[in-house]
Amino acid sequence: MTAEQDVTVYLNGNFLPAAEAKISVMDRGFIFGDGIYEVIPVYGGRLFRLPHHLERLDHSLQGIRLANPLSHASWQQLLEQLVALNGGGDQSLYLQITRGVAPREHSFPHDTAPTVFAMSQPVGPVPESLRQGIAAVTVEDFRWQLCHIKAIALLPNILLRQQATDAGAYEAIMLRDGFVTEGTASNVFIVNNGVVLTPPHSNLLLPGVTRDLVVELCRQNGVPCVEGAISDMQLRDADEIWLTSSSREIIPVTRLDDQPISSLRPGPVWQKVSELYQQYKQAFREGEVT
Amino acid sequence: MTAEQDVTVYLNGNFLPAAEAKISVMDRGFIFGDGIYEVIPVYGGRLFRLPHHLERLDHSLQGIRLANPLSHASWQQLLEQLVALNGGGDQSLYLQITRGVAPREHSFPHDTAPTVFAMSQPVGPVPESLRQGIAAVTVEDFRWQLCHIKAIALLPNILLRQQATDAGAYEAIMLRDGFVTEGTASNVFIVNNGVVLTPPHSNLLLPGVTRDLVVELCRQNGVPCVEGAISDMQLRDADEIWLTSSSREIIPVTRLDDQPISSLRPGPVWQKVSELYQQYKQAFREGEVT
Repeated sequence: MTAEQDVTVYLNGNFLPAAEAKISVMDRGFIFGDGIYEVIPVYGGRLFRLPHHLERLDHSLQGIRLANPLSHASWQQLLEQLVALNGGGDQSLYLQITRGVAPREHSFPHDTAPTVFAMSQPVGPVPESLRQGIAAVTVEDFRWQLCHIKAIALLPNILLRQQATDAGAYEAIMLRDGFVTEGTASNVFIVNNGVVLTPPHSNLLLPGVTRDLVVELCRQNGVPCVEGAISDMQLRDADEIWLTSSSREIIPVTRLDDQPISSLRPGPVWQKVSELYQQYKQAFREGEVT
Repeated sequence: MTAEQDVTVYLNGNFLPAAEAKISVMDRGFIFGDGIYEVIPVYGGRLFRLPHHLERLDHSLQGIRLANPLSHASWQQLLEQLVALNGGGDQSLYLQITRGVAPREHSFPHDTAPTVFAMSQPVGPVPESLRQGIAAVTVEDFRWQLCHIKAIALLPNILLRQQATDAGAYEAIMLRDGFVTEGTASNVFIVNNGVVLTPPHSNLLLPGVTRDLVVELCRQNGVPCVEGAISDMQLRDADEIWLTSSSREIIPVTRLDDQPISSLRPGPVWQKVSELYQQYKQAFREGEVT
């Protein structure tokens, strides 16, 4: 998300230009990384898989023991208004909730209103260059053990992603104790002998909304798909590797640690599942699925 | 630190009232927890162990690969000015550096100035109630594996500290794989048969400036002191348990998981080392040590 300064954002009850959106230095988001977030794609002015994102938002808030300041209906109204104010169409929407402004004490403050921030802006389709295949590197997953919470305290992810960038790669795929967890901002799938495999939900990875949709689409369309652990060796020997995320959809990995994957081209199972995903998205855009 | 709204703070080159200190919602401190911090005690208007804090600041910055925006001399000048603007005397000073304001992308931004924030305000002595002994609980250390970096992404510490608060305790002592790492905002010492023991520096705990000074004072004054791993069982069987931090100095733990430690009273070795610490502090305040 490129945070243009002329988009309209939402901050604590007000819609205002991004450049004017300021928070106190005492916000616990700034001082402690004490908050959670969501990224929601918008297609044709409509929020994609909103109920799933709001459900995950609830889980993240429960994970950090913060009450949801808004009902799902109020969220929908607020976010739809933000999308409309930014011109509808295809957008990427980001929302963040922190534990608010309080004196710097680790324990939760009493009677402090959370900070609610959301921004959204027009985006184009996923670049064709990414859909042709990207390079990834493997890194050791040194993050905390509650990675199912979509927390803003992302410093570990940032340091690991930067390792990928420094290596000329697009994403870092994390391994913990020899098994794949996820990418620094994506979930990981592999294909072997025609079977799609992705790590199961656990405390060690984010339950991706796009990940879950991909599993759903595979199963509805006769593509064998299993949720199970992926070892380091399975990853390296995979016929195909994909990364999924709300903003990048499904992109094929064609180089891993400088070794070619699926002959450096997007594989046939990716072709099929990516097409299913595009069809689903198009149906959503046209109001045929909710 | 109670962040009174009428203190003067420093933000990106300016001294201003705390209530007016605002940052962009796009600051990577707010969006990603992408920054580091220090807490420095001030006695008699002088910054205690400043060179040690600035050296650790350098290490934290290196750990997140961010260049120090100021020389040590400039830091000293800036921080001393902030202390003076807030009336000198005894204060608690907090400083934070983030990777600055940039579009939301995980990889490091190019040519972005870091955000530099510092606040300082008068504090009284450590409350006598704490020096009489506090309650602590043990918790599982589920944080990331680079805990030697003093990062602002403290959400894990906050969730663990809140467990202590909920249990009516003052601090949570973390155990990883059955061994003590540290408290959520303190280092841990135990005493057994007159020997002081604290975990060695590693990537799993913060190299506390107060911790290091306590080790130094023990050794200079004939108190046997060893840096070594402390098992769960050693902790529970300890004659004394102490917590150290810049703002709380050395405080004795007299209850651990609802079990009494050292007969519910501060132990004799704590008495001695705490006195050495107070003498050192007093000598510093009077300019006898630097």
